[in-house]
Amino acid sequence: MKVEGKTYRSIWLDQQAPLAHVIDQTVLPFRFDIRTLNTVDATAQAIATMVVRGAPLIGVTAACGLYLACHADPSDSNLRQAYQQLLDARPTAVNLRWALDRILPTLLEAPTGSRTAAARTLAQQLCDEDVATNSAIGNHGLELIKKHAHRSGATPVNILTHCNAGWLATVDWGTALSPVFKAHDAGIPIHVWVDETRPRNQGASLTAWELGAHGVPHTVIADNAGGHLMQHQQVDLCIVGSDRTTRTGDVCNKIGTYLKALAAHDNDIPFYAALPSSTIDWSVRDGILEIPIEERSAEEVTHINGIDSQNRMTRVRLSPNDSPAANPAFDVTPRRFMTGIITERGVARASEASLLDLFPEQQVNL
Amino acid sequence: MKVEGKTYRSIWLDQQAPLAHVIDQTVLPFRFDIRTLNTVDATAQAIATMVVRGAPLIGVTAACGLYLACHADPSDSNLRQAYQQLLDARPTAVNLRWALDRILPTLLEAPTGSRTAAARTLAQQLCDEDVATNSAIGNHGLELIKKHAHRSGATPVNILTHCNAGWLATVDWGTALSPVFKAHDAGIPIHVWVDETRPRNQGASLTAWELGAHGVPHTVIADNAGGHLMQHQQVDLCIVGSDRTTRTGDVCNKIGTYLKALAAHDNDIPFYAALPSSTIDWSVRDGILEIPIEERSAEEVTHINGIDSQNRMTRVRLSPNDSPAANPAFDVTPRRFMTGIITERGVARASEASLLDLFPEQQVNL
Repeated sequence: MKVEGKTYRSIWLDQQAPLAHVIDQTVLPFRFDIRTLNTVDATAQAIATMVVRGAPLIGVTAACGLYLACHADPSDSNLRQAYQQLLDARPTAVNLRWALDRILPTLLEAPTGSRTAAARTLAQQLCDEDVATNSAIGNHGLELIKKHAHRSGATPVNILTHCNAGWLATVDWGTALSPVFKAHDAGIPIHVWVDETRPRNQGASLTAWELGAHGVPHTVIADNAGGHLMQHQQVDLCIVGSDRTTRTGDVCNKIGTYLKALAAHDNDIPFYAALPSSTIDWSVRDGILEIPIEERSAEEVTHINGIDSQNRMTRVRLSPNDSPAANPAFDVTPRRFMTGIITERGVARASEASLLDLFPEQQVNL
Repeated sequence: MKVEGKTYRSIWLDQQAPLAHVIDQTVLPFRFDIRTLNTVDATAQAIATMVVRGAPLIGVTAACGLYLACHADPSDSNLRQAYQQLLDARPTAVNLRWALDRILPTLLEAPTGSRTAAARTLAQQLCDEDVATNSAIGNHGLELIKKHAHRSGATPVNILTHCNAGWLATVDWGTALSPVFKAHDAGIPIHVWVDETRPRNQGASLTAWELGAHGVPHTVIADNAGGHLMQHQQVDLCIVGSDRTTRTGDVCNKIGTYLKALAAHDNDIPFYAALPSSTIDWSVRDGILEIPIEERSAEEVTHINGIDSQNRMTRVRLSPNDSPAANPAFDVTPRRFMTGIITERGVARASEASLLDLFPEQQVNL
């Protein structure tokens, strides 16, 4: 998407040299820095320190790391070592393994001399596939937004989103924000309510920045505000992302999503999750009972990063030194509160039958 | 309640001079500072900038402000001007008008020469009445907690609260926290989930500090986390305060309260508001339609105060410089999501009939 009028992806391979370029997400929204990755070490480091984050982007970045490793030394032993090093960079990220497993076996089968070229092609393929998937999600979501634009006439369609499921979490377009970008580019007047999304504030830092850089009207709100806005007809539609979705349509997403879904339900406002089908865990039926929720560091609640009056990145403590904090990172929105699930193949109702209509090949996994 | 073993109120009149002393709530939990108010300007400023906050405390503070105005110039015109200035300091707070209306007419009827002494007596009376009222609320709420203690056996009763309706929001005891302090002092094992309550973080800063200072076990959470905890049986009971309650039982309270009430309802968890009857606006029936919601500064969302690694109070920006923010300060929880309303006269259902049973003298205000 666009930053100051220029089109970017969140990661891209250099046209000449064996390098990958990424946007440093640890300094957004305060600085727009491009970082260059030239080795597998640098790539693993960028993943571990969250210079890049977002499940789809982490996978693609690891694929680029394997290409850089291959360029340095295409031997079996070096590739296996790079694989492990990249996998260890974020132990819980499933897309990391998924991306690496798509590439390593093919490379090991190829003659050493052609591995680097093959690795580059495969990494590039993963990038382009991600963009195509998210673009398709955007097109399906766009139809939903058009319906609302038709209803509300000339006024903007007000969309509420939570956390960051934008292009920075993917290679381009994003998931929840893909329909938003498509609608804006199509000239449909839209306005986005951006939940700041405590504790890590990915909404206020990344989503707001993305929307601003692309020119999409938006307003940052505290996570507490959405229910009130819905009660007062200020929200037409909610779209969120998902980290894991059950085959029955329960949606696990950033903590707080469930509260917004409850409010949308109470005020008859459509509530959608937009996600690539790779996010659907076809082996899980009951999201609340079966999905383990990551408990993250209490410091994410007790402290926060921002920029001080001298433009210095600063970390401040918010609560009493001796007050403990708890930090569950995700929650599960039961399917009964989901209006639908926007995938690359179309929009399903949040039910096993409807999801299987779109993905009939998953019938076998019952 | 206690701070480092010493008993405090949140406001007290000086024994010698025409002054009121308050605890500066803008620097808690990082510093415990006493501020002295010597004029009506200083008092209105303290209310507007939230040096003092919380519906009951605001009312009592305004009463003290009227006393200070009276001491400076007891003329009708000055008292009327002070009344308006104090009223304008926080537009949504119904207690402000209630407290001022209890005092101004009496003063205007008194001879000018005796007004200052009368104003002091009335302000002191309001302080003492507030303490008695909150103690009564605590006793009624304690019975509800005892029921849950009985059910959960030896494990602590887990109570979730939002914002700060503790003793700092009143003169002493608090409203929502009064039952908590009473239960803790009675030896009932309790644990409080403290919503941090963005944007001003009164939960993380004030409620956590109060509970810690008094020795009550508690855990700070992001506002997003409560729904997830309720889904997983980690919450037995919710108690919040209220800034304004309709005669029908709709509860206007800090932004985000409505979201927690929805989650409690979805998980069959009792949800109570604890409030002095002065908070009930007997002239209002529909909270969502009739209660105007204060829109506060966007900076409360885009910036936050904390303490840096060198223990300096620091203000940091959280979101992009050019992203607007909205900041509605309260929301309304419709009566259908309230299990009950804890008042100084007992616990009512959230209905006009039940509230009038407790306050039959309000029948006339239909």
